Amino acid sequence: MQEERTKHRENLPEILYQIREMLHRKQVVETLVSKQTMPRHDLVQTLVARQEFTLLKQKLNRLHPADIAFVLESLPLEERYQVWELVEPEHNGAVLLEVSDVVRQDLLASMDHHEILEVADHLESDEIADLVPDLPEDLVPELLDTLNSHDRAQLQTALAFPENTVGALMEFEFIGVREDIVLEVVLRYLRRLGQLPLQINQLMVTDRQGLLRGVLPLRELLLHPPETPVTEVMNTEPILFYTDDEAREAVSAFERYDLLSAPVINAHHQLVGVLNVDAVMDYAQETAEKEIFYQAGLREEEDLFAPIWKSGTNRWPWLALNLLTAFIASRVIGLFEETISQLVALATLMPIVSGIGGNTGTQTTTLLVRGLALKQVNSDNFYHLLFKELSIGMINGVLWGSVMGMVAYLLYRNSSLGLVMMSAMLLNLMLAALAGVLIPWTMYKLGRDPAMGTSVLLTALTDSMGFFIFLGLATLFLLPS
Amino acid sequence: MQEERTKHRENLPEILYQIREMLHRKQVVETLVSKQTMPRHDLVQTLVARQEFTLLKQKLNRLHPADIAFVLESLPLEERYQVWELVEPEHNGAVLLEVSDVVRQDLLASMDHHEILEVADHLESDEIADLVPDLPEDLVPELLDTLNSHDRAQLQTALAFPENTVGALMEFEFIGVREDIVLEVVLRYLRRLGQLPLQINQLMVTDRQGLLRGVLPLRELLLHPPETPVTEVMNTEPILFYTDDEAREAVSAFERYDLLSAPVINAHHQLVGVLNVDAVMDYAQETAEKEIFYQAGLREEEDLFAPIWKSGTNRWPWLALNLLTAFIASRVIGLFEETISQLVALATLMPIVSGIGGNTGTQTTTLLVRGLALKQVNSDNFYHLLFKELSIGMINGVLWGSVMGMVAYLLYRNSSLGLVMMSAMLLNLMLAALAGVLIPWTMYKLGRDPAMGTSVLLTALTDSMGFFIFLGLATLFLLPS
Repeated sequence: MQEERTKHRENLPEILYQIREMLHRKQVVETLVSKQTMPRHDLVQTLVARQEFTLLKQKLNRLHPADIAFVLESLPLEERYQVWELVEPEHNGAVLLEVSDVVRQDLLASMDHHEILEVADHLESDEIADLVPDLPEDLVPELLDTLNSHDRAQLQTALAFPENTVGALMEFEFIGVREDIVLEVVLRYLRRLGQLPLQINQLMVTDRQGLLRGVLPLRELLLHPPETPVTEVMNTEPILFYTDDEAREAVSAFERYDLLSAPVINAHHQLVGVLNVDAVMDYAQETAEKEIFYQAGLREEEDLFAPIWKSGTNRWPWLALNLLTAFIASRVIGLFEETISQLVALATLMPIVSGIGGNTGTQTTTLLVRGLALKQVNSDNFYHLLFKELSIGMINGVLWGSVMGMVAYLLYRNSSLGLVMMSAMLLNLMLAALAGVLIPWTMYKLGRDPAMGTSVLLTALTDSMGFFIFLGLATLFLLPS
Repeated sequence: MQEERTKHRENLPEILYQIREMLHRKQVVETLVSKQTMPRHDLVQTLVARQEFTLLKQKLNRLHPADIAFVLESLPLEERYQVWELVEPEHNGAVLLEVSDVVRQDLLASMDHHEILEVADHLESDEIADLVPDLPEDLVPELLDTLNSHDRAQLQTALAFPENTVGALMEFEFIGVREDIVLEVVLRYLRRLGQLPLQINQLMVTDRQGLLRGVLPLRELLLHPPETPVTEVMNTEPILFYTDDEAREAVSAFERYDLLSAPVINAHHQLVGVLNVDAVMDYAQETAEKEIFYQAGLREEEDLFAPIWKSGTNRWPWLALNLLTAFIASRVIGLFEETISQLVALATLMPIVSGIGGNTGTQTTTLLVRGLALKQVNSDNFYHLLFKELSIGMINGVLWGSVMGMVAYLLYRNSSLGLVMMSAMLLNLMLAALAGVLIPWTMYKLGRDPAMGTSVLLTALTDSMGFFIFLGLATLFLLPS
């Protein structure tokens, strides 16, 4: 049966609405029945409701697993569990693979061991491997026992690949052929198989030892006469990956060379699997989303409908970190209480100096982080970039510093205050440029991901230093000595 | 000749280095020659240098266009132009399509009309359409004149598709077959064509009017006997797109259903092109990058090596906007100068209150923006989410407000100050939650992209209101009346 697929999700909101309506009506009927307050003649109505319910269940199960996943993610917890009960067991696995990490943990926690083992029964070993991190620990040995030795070995291999490597993204299943045959034999072999993976665009060519010899695009199979030897039309130098290559390198290569799939080999040059573009695309999307979440201080993708307490605590580490840096900045201001008490105008102007440092520093950092990720920033051009950012900091510092210095003067009719304002903005913008380049660069040199943590460090620095520079200059030049 | 492709870009830095070395040496030799100071016996060395130069040029031109693009993007301007001169004209077009928008504009500006017209000669009409926005305006009519009527019509069609629609992403070229034939005829047709697009995974099936009847996966062509009619194995309900569908809907559908390609039809249901996964993936990646840049206040992707002045002005709008909001916040503080002068401690504590509002508001906004983009947030669950975020704001406000209230008390031994601190944090966190939900929701309801501009508005609000609430409460409860 063809799955129902909704290109634009345009009918998904409709289905969502129907489901919620139905669940509500079902609950009403059940309450009435349980209280035995339902009069006889309403039994007909109950039956109608049951029929509708069955239809809805069918409708739900005809959806593509990705769309069932969408429905589940869009429902508040209680309704989510009820709908999850309606999903046929044979779809459970596919749906679990599609939902976000947090919702997957949530759904798995609602299932008993027996149900989970049944889910695994419908999945490939590389797919099971994706679920394992979210399973109860005591279930894993039990799960391994239910597999035959081949699948168990594969699952154990899959589990051994570190996250974010090509091994963890690839599939074990591929169609392999030998190089010493002609295309006709290949065609006969494929017809005997009777079906091919949906996404397939090339066959793998191996020798007797399982070493990769090349790839045979389906295209070539179609274009050449049956008597052509495989060796004549196969591509002997395909882009290939090792199982321990970094997944983001694969993303970059798939993008650059417009790949649809690529062979994956182990350290002994044996073919062990295939990396497909859909896995690569999903990974790229997930990574981009994680980065956005991380930048906003959410520890992991957060379930929109997670309980309040869980969502609340999810945000603590970021809050605590920011309170700490704000506290430090506050103590910096504290050093100058005496100065502020003599010239309260300083208190009104100081957030401008600190804020603008954070803003420009973030601009620089964003450019650097991207340049480092693309490997376009290197030791060769590092000083060029540092010099450039410092120059920009200086130009913008003079320009916007003058503007704000003038504003300060006009507000308080104090020309020294205007000059202090201007100098402080200039210095903080140059400091922001310096830090905006050096922080990601240092992280990169230390082998850490420059995208992570840079922004907190940067703002902490530009905030505290912004206050220090501005209030320090004011203390030196504005107070009667 | 097979292009050289570098999976990991691992040898690209090496090539970059060689290129820079070579350019440097070439310049030295040329200077010497021009000054006629080169002694005779150095002529041999010059010849060797020329030979190396030729080798390097060959090496560069053997690279995949995406890798040449990488080399160009990684070079400072002067060297970039020199290397661009070395790229063979027949690769120019492919490279221009691969470089980022800003570098493309830069390179095109360095070429004369004749060179640009030659570039267009090597490209498909949908590819030319991608270049047109960056061409000198007076060149476009000239360009149209060089095309034959078919290509001209296609180019004009392509130019008519708005940015960010499927029409602008799709390719015009596809292999179409009729539905009333058997597979053997299809196979003969393909062999007569002699070659197929690299990325092809299905053929388009149309009727005599050019209406789409279905798609025929290559897979099915291989699996079924030659006498099978096309109608028997074609997929009559493929996921398809209209030319004016939004590109991001296509991204979402390709991800969900793991598509490799999809037919694109016009309003009359005529097949007009094909959307391939590589274009979709590139679009997704570009959009994600643009969002990150936009969030950091960079107007467009910025060329790492753009001249200082250009990069500097690129950052002005964001700077100006942030200075404006900082100025407003500063004026809010100005309202309470009298209060601050009586209790300077307020000046040290106030940035904590305002800062933390921005931080928590950003967390809420990020969740909402994503939920709206995925269509998981809707009128049905909006109030549920608003209530949840307000609850979290309240819980975290009470908790962290108490912590900071205690800190304030310990610092200044003033219990009223501690209470004001706590109340202000609680109120500002709840305000941040409210604004964090309402701002993206309102933008969404107004038909604007909630990802754009939300963060500036939010921080402007939480900053100003943070100061207002804290200093306002202090004025009410801390000053001797």
